[in-house]
Parts: sequence; structure tokens; C-alpha cells
Amino acid sequence: MISTTIAALATARGLGALNVIRVSGPDALAVAQKVFAAKAEWVPRKVILGSFRSASGDELDQGLATWFQGPASFTGEDVVEFGLHGSPYIAEEALHALIHAGATLALPGEFTQRAFAHGKLDLAQAEAVGDLIAAESRAGHELALKQLKGSVSRKLHELRQQLTDFAGLIELELDFVDEDVEFAQRDQLLDVLQQITAECTRMHDSFRHGQAIREGIPLVLLGAPNAGKSTLLNRLLRDDRALVSSVPGTTRDSVEERFRLDDYVFRLIDTAGIRATHDEVEQMGIQRSWAKLREAHIALLLVDPLATSAPEAQALVDEVARENPQAKRLVLLTKRDLWSDVQTDHYPAHLELGPDDQDLAALEAQLLAQVRSGEPQGNVLIANARHAEALRLSLEAMARVRASLEAQTSGELVAYDLREALRHLGSITGEITADDLLGSIFSSFCIGK
Amino acid sequence: MISTTIAALATARGLGALNVIRVSGPDALAVAQKVFAAKAEWVPRKVILGSFRSASGDELDQGLATWFQGPASFTGEDVVEFGLHGSPYIAEEALHALIHAGATLALPGEFTQRAFAHGKLDLAQAEAVGDLIAAESRAGHELALKQLKGSVSRKLHELRQQLTDFAGLIELELDFVDEDVEFAQRDQLLDVLQQITAECTRMHDSFRHGQAIREGIPLVLLGAPNAGKSTLLNRLLRDDRALVSSVPGTTRDSVEERFRLDDYVFRLIDTAGIRATHDEVEQMGIQRSWAKLREAHIALLLVDPLATSAPEAQALVDEVARENPQAKRLVLLTKRDLWSDVQTDHYPAHLELGPDDQDLAALEAQLLAQVRSGEPQGNVLIANARHAEALRLSLEAMARVRASLEAQTSGELVAYDLREALRHLGSITGEITADDLLGSIFSSFCIGK
Repeated sequence: MISTTIAALATARGLGALNVIRVSGPDALAVAQKVFAAKAEWVPRKVILGSFRSASGDELDQGLATWFQGPASFTGEDVVEFGLHGSPYIAEEALHALIHAGATLALPGEFTQRAFAHGKLDLAQAEAVGDLIAAESRAGHELALKQLKGSVSRKLHELRQQLTDFAGLIELELDFVDEDVEFAQRDQLLDVLQQITAECTRMHDSFRHGQAIREGIPLVLLGAPNAGKSTLLNRLLRDDRALVSSVPGTTRDSVEERFRLDDYVFRLIDTAGIRATHDEVEQMGIQRSWAKLREAHIALLLVDPLATSAPEAQALVDEVARENPQAKRLVLLTKRDLWSDVQTDHYPAHLELGPDDQDLAALEAQLLAQVRSGEPQGNVLIANARHAEALRLSLEAMARVRASLEAQTSGELVAYDLREALRHLGSITGEITADDLLGSIFSSFCIGK
Repeated sequence: MISTTIAALATARGLGALNVIRVSGPDALAVAQKVFAAKAEWVPRKVILGSFRSASGDELDQGLATWFQGPASFTGEDVVEFGLHGSPYIAEEALHALIHAGATLALPGEFTQRAFAHGKLDLAQAEAVGDLIAAESRAGHELALKQLKGSVSRKLHELRQQLTDFAGLIELELDFVDEDVEFAQRDQLLDVLQQITAECTRMHDSFRHGQAIREGIPLVLLGAPNAGKSTLLNRLLRDDRALVSSVPGTTRDSVEERFRLDDYVFRLIDTAGIRATHDEVEQMGIQRSWAKLREAHIALLLVDPLATSAPEAQALVDEVARENPQAKRLVLLTKRDLWSDVQTDHYPAHLELGPDDQDLAALEAQLLAQVRSGEPQGNVLIANARHAEALRLSLEAMARVRASLEAQTSGELVAYDLREALRHLGSITGEITADDLLGSIFSSFCIGK
């Protein structure tokens, strides 16, 4: 049982017209009534006007308060929300007053954790709250909203249900082990297992795309020095679209830029120019370019046909394909305005890029087409590394179940591995979970969430 | 009549658990109903749960909505407030959807301007909304809250009432000018005028203190190079108190720091060291130090007694007094740990400052005492330059009224100047106002306020 009442600023820090301060817990209403004097009565979900008093008893602000009576609230507990003038000073003093009245300052994610504890959200949904807030694109937002609304949870629930039924029959057999009955038809079980494995594999594999949607689609620019990478980078990031400022990369010489194109955010990873060299430092830079390439979902190869021959370009394409077979490859013949008699049909399949806006638009359309062609089948996408890992562990356990069944080994082993598979699937939604896991999930939230 | 319906984000920008989006205007409810689908009915001040749809009709978020039926709302119009997940992307898309549904994006301060237009706030109160949000200290906050609650407005209303009665009698005389009657007793009128003038002068003069409370109390550090200024600055700004980061000064060589001490924010203005020099560049720096001194409410003179004799220190004090007679002067004998046999009683009245925390605490107590001793009489403080200027213009007009009365010149002139005095007083609360003034006041607000 949770006995404390927590309080925190729920809106972003900074100056605004309004701030919302949220209080949740068994004493939320009592605490609120100590600090907020209103003429109107406190009625659930009725907004009332009143005077918020500071810890010293002076009027701090005039504002609004709303009582959400548990369990019909975000956390499932009694919640009071105050709408005050959007001043950091007032927010700070209001929190002081609430603490003075008996509340404690909420830890990061503690409101959502309580919603989970009271069964308002499962763990996958709770994690989606954070993703929803951080989403920067339509695709990322849609993904998080679906997860918040329970699409992942429902799918997992369905799969677990089938496995649970299966496990029940196996365990029943164990109870009657002396009588050598077989409740669970082995080949039927193998069929079911195959279906669930296929579904879990699909979900697990969707993580590559889901993560890219959530965190930005990794797009690497590759090409010889002077192939036009910086120019293209600047054109892709033109001001009206640049979403987020530069993020320093993990290596000193690479910078990651983010930009939004249609429904997606791209992580644009620039690299040192690739060419044959005996210079050791330059070789290291080139090594890093190849390393970056291995993260990419899309590799954009820039080729200046005046500097690079068709066979050289083909060799580059082949090398990229070897280094990262999964990445979509796009070849761009750059500096279109500077050449006219190049035999472009000798080059690998490509787009041409000159200073025209139309050329850029064609490239952008290609980028979007590449992303869309990478969309996995099925309507449940995994975007969380924890979920992907749990699916992987569950798949491993199911593979052991399959092997045991095929080798006709004892029911005990099958039952044990089935429970393992169920446990890992259950950890995603938190049906089966450990306290330390909860701590690590919710502490990454901001306070007030 | 205002016919448009406006919408804006009301909470600070950035990630948070919640965002509030506010819609106000005659169509607020109709617009809200187009974007927000709820099972519950829309009842004034009842918070309802529902689904917010984007402009394309897809679900954007699940959130809360509240309808405030005009005139019982902040703006006096129908207002709908949405509480959505605190994501910048969702806020942006929600505003798109509201515009698509017929709202227009609010201009800076437009909500407050509408509250003024509908008589919910007068102009002085509307200006206090901005001050309240920006206040960083208890004193600044209290000042703004009082003004928001109408203390300035009530005082001005009272003064205007007296002047209006007076003006009415004078104008009545003008109607009966042929009959040479005198409704307004001249010496009674002079008495009333004197009282009002005294009150307006007091309010006008309170602006020096009010502005310091609102913007930070200007505190200048003066002294020879090596007198210990930087050390003191760092001690005053110790991390746990520094409120706001450094603000680059108007001159390259001065930096303004802000720190909170008890109820107040101080603007700490460091200056180039003052000493006799023939170096031209250094002389310019010293000139700037004196210029800064003239802004100060408190001048802190740092004197190292091992480097500066008692007569030199006295000369410095005298010079400071000549340059800024209004500033409180505080002399500090620094580096207390480095000297023992200095005849400190030969120095001007002073505190001593060594590395002890106690010494710093004594200095801070002195600073607070100096601020409090500068508090003007009366309980209405003016903190707004526009108000101070209006009071000054009104006082000028009242001085002309007084002169006319004493010279027994015509009633026309008296009546004219009385109207002028009333007009300037009335401009503070907006009882008498011009559209261009409104524009300039509200455009300094942020959007959503």
C-alpha cells in the first residue's frame, strides 16, 4: 500500500502563462485543502477558483484547483491539480507549501509508476508515456500513442494466453506422470509454438524499424572528400526544417544532425571522406566512417563523376553492401551542373543532384520511399530495447521447448522452459516483474510525470 | 465586439508531463467540440476526458478538457482549456487542429488583453500578470500580486474620484459664468489638491524602490584593484543562491550578476578598479565605474587598509557621496585575516571582512537592512515606468492647476488642466486609453498569456 502523497510541477520549466502542479496520494485532498482556500465546494472533476497560500500563510497566487477522486484519476489515487500563474518562483513556493502541508516531492516518473501500481497502465503503456512526450515526428508519435493505448500489451496478452494454455496441459501431465497420459498433443503443440515463435520473431525484428522511428532514422552520408557532402547536408538541414540542434557525436570528428521530413525524423550522420590513403590518421577517420555505416538504415553514397569513375563507384557500392547488407543504398551523382558528357548509364543505379530544388525534392522522395519500404509487416511495432531483449530471451526459451519436444525429453524441462518464455513475455507489460526493474524504468522519466 | 476565437499554448515550452492549450472567444466551445471527442457532456467547469483529433482526423492524444463559460472565465469570453501530454509535437499538432477548426493563433498577450477588454482586469492589473510571472523574489512577487489584486487601481480610483468631484464643481461654475457664482471653494480646493499632490508624489517617488524590487536592487562594488572585489563577488554568488546566470553588461568590461538574498533579488554590478592613473584606457574604465555608480541603490566600497590609508578611504567615500547622494554607502575593510594593527577607528564607519562565513553574514544582514530602510512610506508601490511617467505628467498638470488657482486666473484653464491630470491618472488603469498604447503594452507579453 502506498501511503505517501506526492507533489510536483507537471508542466515544463520556464516562464509561461500557466503552470500545473499535481498532487497524488491518499491525502491529496486534505493537503490541497490546507493550501488552497476556495469558496466553492470540492466536487470531483469540478474546477474551483481560490487562493493558494504559501507555507508562511500569505497569499501566493489566485488560481484554479481540480480534485480527481481515485480511482478515476491518472494515478488511480486521489489527485488534485492546481493551475497557477506560470512563474517559476510561484511554482517553487507552491511546492514548499504543499510539502509543509504534508506532501513529499515526487521522484522522477513517480506519478506514472503509481498509475502502474494501481493497474491504470501496464508497464509497456507506462513506458509509452515517456515516448509520447518525446516524440518529434508523426510516425514516432503514432507509434507511442498506439503503445500507450495498449496495442503491444494486447498482442502480448494474446500470445501469453496461448502459451499459458499449452503450459497448463504440460503441467497437468506432470501431475499424472505415473499414469503416462498425454493431455497435450505434441504435434499440435509444435504448431502452436511455431505460430507464436513466428509472431514473436516478427515483433522482435520490428525493433530495428521501431527504434529508428522513435530515435530517428540513421542516414549515413558516404563519399570521397569533395563529393559534395557538406553542401547536401546544409540543404537537407535548411532552417525551416531543422528540428533539433546539432548533437555532438561519440567521436570528435562526427556530428549528428536531426531533421524532419514528412512523417519522420532522420539522424543524419556525416562521416570523414572515404578514399584510398596511406595516411594513418586519415585511415582511422575512414575506419570510423565504415563503423558508422554499420549503424545506418540508409546509406547515401555521393559520387562526383568528374572525380570518380564508374568502376570506382561500383566498387564503393559493393563495399557498402558487404559492410552493411541491411542498409538501403542510394547513389547520388553530384555536381550535376558541372558536367554534361558523362556516360551516366555506366554508373550504378542513381539519382543526379544539381543545385535545383527539384533534384533535392527527388532525393527526399527517394529517402521517404526507402523508409516506407522498410516498414515491417504486422501492426504491432516494438520500439523499446527492453521489450526487444525480453522477446529475444523468450524466443530462446521457446527454441529450447521446441528442441525438447522434438527430442521427446521429459515434460519437466518443457514446462520449465515454457515458464521462462512466459516470464520474459510477461516482463514487457509488467505482469511479471521485479522491483529493481521498475526503479530503472521510472527513474529515466522526468519529475512530475 | 471581438469576433475571433484565439488559441495558444499556455504552459512553458519544452518537455513536461502536461501541456495546457487555451482557446478563448465566442466560438471556443464549438471549435473545441470539433477537435475533442468526449463521452461526457460539456458542462461549465467540469473536467472531461476525451480524445483530441489532429487536423487530419486521426487521434492525436487522450487528454482532458474544461469549458469555462463566459463571462465567468479569465478573458470574460467562453474559454476551453485542454490538458494534453507535455510534448512539443502534440502541442504543435493540436494548435494546427484548432486553427483548422476555426481558431486563430493568439498574439502575444492577447488573452490578457481580452480580459482587459471585457472588464475582468484593468490595465494596471493586466500589466501585473506579466510581472507576477517574471517575479524572482518574495518582495517582487508580493508587489506584483498586490497590483494584480488591484491595490494600485483602488488607490488611483480614490484619487481620481476626488479630482473628478473637484473638476465637476469648476465646470459647473463655467456653465454659470455670467452669474459669477463660485461653487468650488478655492481654499478647500487648494487643500484637496495639496493632499492629492502629496499622495501622487509619494507614489511617483516609490517607483525608484518599486523598480528595484521588480528588476533587482542595483548594488555596485567599488574599490581599488586588488581590494578584494572578485573574491567578494564569488562569495555573494555562491552556487546555492545564484538565481540567474551572468548577463553581459552594456560595456564589454562589466558583468551583471543576480542573486537572491532573503526576500530580494540584487543586481550585482562589478566595476573596473578605481584608482588615480594616467593610463587613458584605464581612465575610461574608471569613468565607466563612476557611471555605474550613479545607477546604484547601494554602493559597496571595498578598502584594503594595507593599501589604502584612512584619509584616502574617506576621500573615496566623499566622492561616492557626491556622485550619487541617494545611494546607501557601505564601507568594507577587506582582507581582515591579513592585518592586525590597523587603526580601524580612523577609517570611515565600516564593516570588516575576512574569510569567515560570519563576516559575510554580517555584510548580508547590512545589505538587507539598507534595502529595508529605503522602503517608501505607504502601502502602494509603483513598479512600472509607464505608471511613474503618467504620475509625473499628472503632477505637472496639478501644479499648473495650483498656479492658476493661486493667480486667480480663469476657470477654463483650471478645468483644462484638471482634465489633463485626470487623463494621465486614468491612463494607468486604462479608464482612459488609446489603442496604440494597448498594442505596445500587450505585445511585450508572451504568446498564450
